[in-house]
Amino acid sequence: MDSAAWALLFDLLGVFFFAVSGCLTAAQKDYDIVGSLLLGSLTGIGGGVIRDLVLGRFPSSFAEPIYLAPPVLAAVVVYFLMPALQKLRRTLLMFDAAGLALFCITGTITALGLGVNPIPSAILGTVTAIGGGLLRDTVANVRPGLFDRHDIYAVPAMVGAGAVSVLWTLGLYSTAAGVVVAVVVFAFRVLALRFRWRVPLAASSRHRREPRPRG
Amino acid sequence: MDSAAWALLFDLLGVFFFAVSGCLTAAQKDYDIVGSLLLGSLTGIGGGVIRDLVLGRFPSSFAEPIYLAPPVLAAVVVYFLMPALQKLRRTLLMFDAAGLALFCITGTITALGLGVNPIPSAILGTVTAIGGGLLRDTVANVRPGLFDRHDIYAVPAMVGAGAVSVLWTLGLYSTAAGVVVAVVVFAFRVLALRFRWRVPLAASSRHRREPRPRG
Amino acid sequence: MDSAAWALLFDLLGVFFFAVSGCLTAAQKDYDIVGSLLLGSLTGIGGGVIRDLVLGRFPSSFAEPIYLAPPVLAAVVVYFLMPALQKLRRTLLMFDAAGLALFCITGTITALGLGVNPIPSAILGTVTAIGGGLLRDTVANVRPGLFDRHDIYAVPAMVGAGAVSVLWTLGLYSTAAGVVVAVVVFAFRVLALRFRWRVPLAASSRHRREPRPRG
Repeated sequence: MDSAAWALLFDLLGVFFFAVSGCLTAAQKDYDIVGSLLLGSLTGIGGGVIRDLVLGRFPSSFAEPIYLAPPVLAAVVVYFLMPALQKLRRTLLMFDAAGLALFCITGTITALGLGVNPIPSAILGTVTAIGGGLLRDTVANVRPGLFDRHDIYAVPAMVGAGAVSVLWTLGLYSTAAGVVVAVVVFAFRVLALRFRWRVPLAASSRHRREPRPRG
Repeated sequence: MDSAAWALLFDLLGVFFFAVSGCLTAAQKDYDIVGSLLLGSLTGIGGGVIRDLVLGRFPSSFAEPIYLAPPVLAAVVVYFLMPALQKLRRTLLMFDAAGLALFCITGTITALGLGVNPIPSAILGTVTAIGGGLLRDTVANVRPGLFDRHDIYAVPAMVGAGAVSVLWTLGLYSTAAGVVVAVVVFAFRVLALRFRWRVPLAASSRHRREPRPRG
Repeated sequence: MDSAAWALLFDLLGVFFFAVSGCLTAAQKDYDIVGSLLLGSLTGIGGGVIRDLVLGRFPSSFAEPIYLAPPVLAAVVVYFLMPALQKLRRTLLMFDAAGLALFCITGTITALGLGVNPIPSAILGTVTAIGGGLLRDTVANVRPGLFDRHDIYAVPAMVGAGAVSVLWTLGLYSTAAGVVVAVVVFAFRVLALRFRWRVPLAASSRHRREPRPRG
């Protein structure tokens, strides 16, 4: 397989992981199977569509029918194998983390490959990675996980997108390097979830004045 | 009238129907008349703008000022003639169904006319048909009707968009055929509402374990 | 400074004002500092990105890294200087009004400068002005200020965008004229807030039938 085939494979895998997170959200909210397919599709291809619209190209998920497969597969898998309820949230977060890890790589690479400068490319990679999940939560009326203060969500994607941009600029990017970055981003995100790594709140003053219990 | 004029007329009618559904939502949420015009406009032209952005063309609703007329008319009609409250939801759903029926046709035809392949064209037609209502509900903080498990919403649009794509590919599409498809889609959607036609839920296992009352 | 430099300065100022409103919303919702930066960025550049996507050009906020500075600055300012809670809402509305006043000018001018007709340009200017705040409120699950019936929000932006379009068409637009329009729009919006200027509700009939207390 050449690097373009690997890139397509990673992108399809990322679509699948995010689509599963969308279908699990649909199951959580008691949507029907069509709503599951639609929310899974929106979550899976949403980030890439935003990226492609910014890049001014026909979204790859519309151009290539193969992109239909991962959301359909995700809806079927969730329909038959939905995890027990008490594990649903954790499963959802794992799939979301895997999508995040892949999309911050493929999103950045797509932009760099079209000649976009390194900084905007890393930003577009981050937007690709966080866009689908944000659309999922906004449309499903769920408080966006992106803004959950109890763990770190966007930082791993930013780090991954930034790393790919730097490697590419230095001429050191390869498919193997991309895999390593994706694994690091995934591990970073999962550890942040597990150990509730946090960053400071949006306002330093507020909580100095009125401390409140964690919750 | 030639087929392009018919297509424009259908599109403007679709914008009007969806705009009425947006203005009725605004009335339901006690927005003022400007909010009504804006939510009506977003609902009416939202699906088409997403379609045109994906297709990489200047959105027709911005290019041709005639597209301003349906949302203005809708806001005026709703202002003076808003149905009694107990009939509001039903009226809203009827207008929404009419918009759905027209947009799955015009959206698909627009994409096919620009040389897009049949499958992506049918998907874009579906996105055009369900996009405006999804934007309306998301922005107005209403649980999206698209994801309501008590009836079928997206399937009629998918069927209509698919039928148009097949007819076009076979060289059998005509304005009259489009009207027939739109009527079928509208009837399908209204019957699904009336008789609460459903599809299975997103997860087969969940409700096997914990049956719950309908509601 | 030539007029292009002034236009860039106004745009960056508008991004900063809206970004502050996004970061204040993040503080209100107890997001962390990264969520603050992201919501500030979305609010600050969201309207302009929608405008640029409609115009079919690479969004200026992605093309020019200088657009990164205002959201970062806004997140830092809000982190250290967040106003006392009882004044937070008012501060947020002031910054939002300042962004509105600037973006209805710069959004309209951007479209006119690319050869778009006066009416669509004024509409795009209005979309630029109200888009960022609508994205902010939708994503943060806040009832959109745009649809608040207790004051006038969109009308000042429409008036400002329309005025710029008329002045430009008559060959009378200048940077100084733009500043005057921005000041008028800002004053209009602030007076509407202060004195609770309103327009009629979306439906005349509803409240005729069932009067309800203001609230």
